[in-house]
Amino acid sequence: MTAEFSFTLLGTDGGARTGLVRTLHGEIRTPAFMPVGTAATVKGLYPEQVKEAGADILLGNTYHLMLRPGAEEIAALGGLHKFMRWDAPILTDSGGFQIMSLSKLRKITEQGAVFQSHIDGRRHELTPERAMEIQRLLGSDIQMQLDECLMYPHTEADAERAMQLSLRWAERSRIAFGRQPGRGNFGIVQGGINERLRRESAEGLVGIGFEGYAIGGLAVGEGQNLMLETITHTVPHLPVAKPRYLMGVGTPEDIIEAVARGVDMFDCVMPTRSGRHGQAFTRFGKINLRNAKHAGDSRPLDAESPCPAHAHYSRAYLHHLVRSGELLGMMLLSWANTAYYQQLMKGIRDSIATGCFEEFRHQTKEQWKKGDVSV
Amino acid sequence: MTAEFSFTLLGTDGGARTGLVRTLHGEIRTPAFMPVGTAATVKGLYPEQVKEAGADILLGNTYHLMLRPGAEEIAALGGLHKFMRWDAPILTDSGGFQIMSLSKLRKITEQGAVFQSHIDGRRHELTPERAMEIQRLLGSDIQMQLDECLMYPHTEADAERAMQLSLRWAERSRIAFGRQPGRGNFGIVQGGINERLRRESAEGLVGIGFEGYAIGGLAVGEGQNLMLETITHTVPHLPVAKPRYLMGVGTPEDIIEAVARGVDMFDCVMPTRSGRHGQAFTRFGKINLRNAKHAGDSRPLDAESPCPAHAHYSRAYLHHLVRSGELLGMMLLSWANTAYYQQLMKGIRDSIATGCFEEFRHQTKEQWKKGDVSV
Repeated sequence: MTAEFSFTLLGTDGGARTGLVRTLHGEIRTPAFMPVGTAATVKGLYPEQVKEAGADILLGNTYHLMLRPGAEEIAALGGLHKFMRWDAPILTDSGGFQIMSLSKLRKITEQGAVFQSHIDGRRHELTPERAMEIQRLLGSDIQMQLDECLMYPHTEADAERAMQLSLRWAERSRIAFGRQPGRGNFGIVQGGINERLRRESAEGLVGIGFEGYAIGGLAVGEGQNLMLETITHTVPHLPVAKPRYLMGVGTPEDIIEAVARGVDMFDCVMPTRSGRHGQAFTRFGKINLRNAKHAGDSRPLDAESPCPAHAHYSRAYLHHLVRSGELLGMMLLSWANTAYYQQLMKGIRDSIATGCFEEFRHQTKEQWKKGDVSV
Repeated sequence: MTAEFSFTLLGTDGGARTGLVRTLHGEIRTPAFMPVGTAATVKGLYPEQVKEAGADILLGNTYHLMLRPGAEEIAALGGLHKFMRWDAPILTDSGGFQIMSLSKLRKITEQGAVFQSHIDGRRHELTPERAMEIQRLLGSDIQMQLDECLMYPHTEADAERAMQLSLRWAERSRIAFGRQPGRGNFGIVQGGINERLRRESAEGLVGIGFEGYAIGGLAVGEGQNLMLETITHTVPHLPVAKPRYLMGVGTPEDIIEAVARGVDMFDCVMPTRSGRHGQAFTRFGKINLRNAKHAGDSRPLDAESPCPAHAHYSRAYLHHLVRSGELLGMMLLSWANTAYYQQLMKGIRDSIATGCFEEFRHQTKEQWKKGDVSV
């Protein structure tokens, strides 16, 4: 527990940084990967498994939680931490991304977003002020501004319009956030893949002043090269003394490359979504358990992993569970992947702290090539 | 570990019995409820959770396992115990019930059953000899004879024909079982709801001689009254010194009533299937978490239960998970129900051992009436 939200930079290695974010509900070691708990649950995992895997913080989705069960309902039950039995830090997004990707018949105005729920078609309005109010009701430790997020490709004119709107919404969000000791409010840099727009967005946000800065509007179809270029263009315009969060990213390789460019925080549904679809992330790369070649393979995914889902179950059994559509298959692979992502982040942090991030980056990628091999 | 399969009757209280079955993979305290691990997994539970809930033994389905991944495939991987990470006793059924309830275009002859897989439509044959061979390959501790099981209603002539066929198959199964130290072979009493047929079936099986006797062909649509009557008619014809297993039963009330009539072993998919459908079994009866009245209820299912799924999660959260179709909802309720069934069996065993089964039976039923109440 700490009275004030803070970020301490503990070390750097090239462009990579390691540090510590302090929040009301505890500390976050960075670079950090936040498992996604969309509907107040990291899909297929018990909260204890998420914590034991090494996660310091998880992410909840404002869009989903406002629709079901509702922000006021969660507040009445004591807040999101208590509701989902997670007493460590929680970051909530603002709903902007899901309004773009999930909702129907959305309409964006200066005031905010009006959209239809993807669950029951009911009409909802989300303004910058309401997005902050919802996050305050949820009680999250890091609360994101409402932004307008575009899919790729889009015109430069659209990117500029959405970036400017997001900047005005940032100011309204910041005012609505108010003062919440131990909690932080992050602005979101937009501007598509345009270097000038990204710079203007970052400078605008820094002018307002936030506890942290996110890079939004990436991993939306532009591909890894353009994503990394955009990160490279954006990071120099963000304050060194504040955490930097790359939203919705990504593969293990995306993460290592973004860390090399100075990013501190990540979130992605990939570990659990891939797990539900029969894919395992391991030190030896991604393994597709649906593949018939695993049917007779008595080896575990990784005998040396501390995660039981990696170390104790045979590939043959996992293959059988996946082919049979069994819940346990989804549970084990979601667990294994969540654990692998945390193991990767620990490796990244340790290597930065000891000045051997470049070596770690190289060795980790070499190891991934051992890949999806049969006996 | 024990060299010989055995059953020790430790105590009786009225018609109810408590005892100990010894097998190659350990002991089974009776009355016992066997969680169903159809496809080599108790749906939605880690094997450790099944064990910690108090289960001494679980059931695997020959029909499912022969179709996927295959008996020879499991044998090549070291047997079913190793495959599914369960080192305690396993009972496998013979496939007869699933051929009746799941397969397509089945044809029963004197030789055996020919049927089409419900998975891919492929043609399979299951004879009494092959059913035993499969169970030997799986390595189960209790292996069931192949029988012909009828749905209710059926004609008495059909019941007699199927019972006589099952008796001839029992003899062939017994020969095929051979000698397997530490493992047991159970015969299955058939005969519908007809007292004479049940007696003839039981006497025929006792004449062959098995390590235990199952009562099959019940809980197939006849209702609780006829089921309990049939048990009452059948049990007197079974040897006191052998375990008695009522197949596919049932609700907590069915179990208590069958125990009162001298049954020692049970299996049913109800705890996990109900759990996947939003229903919780507790000391206070069955609770339907889908019901809107639970939305604001911060109480757990049962604060005094040793199972975290009962004690640590609010009804409001469980309601939210069920409504949202989240895996964690299915996981928690399947776990809670599996734990409740084992708690019930422990209560039954302890009450028989201390001579107060009647009191336990009465109090437990009274407690269930407190039921599905809101705050």
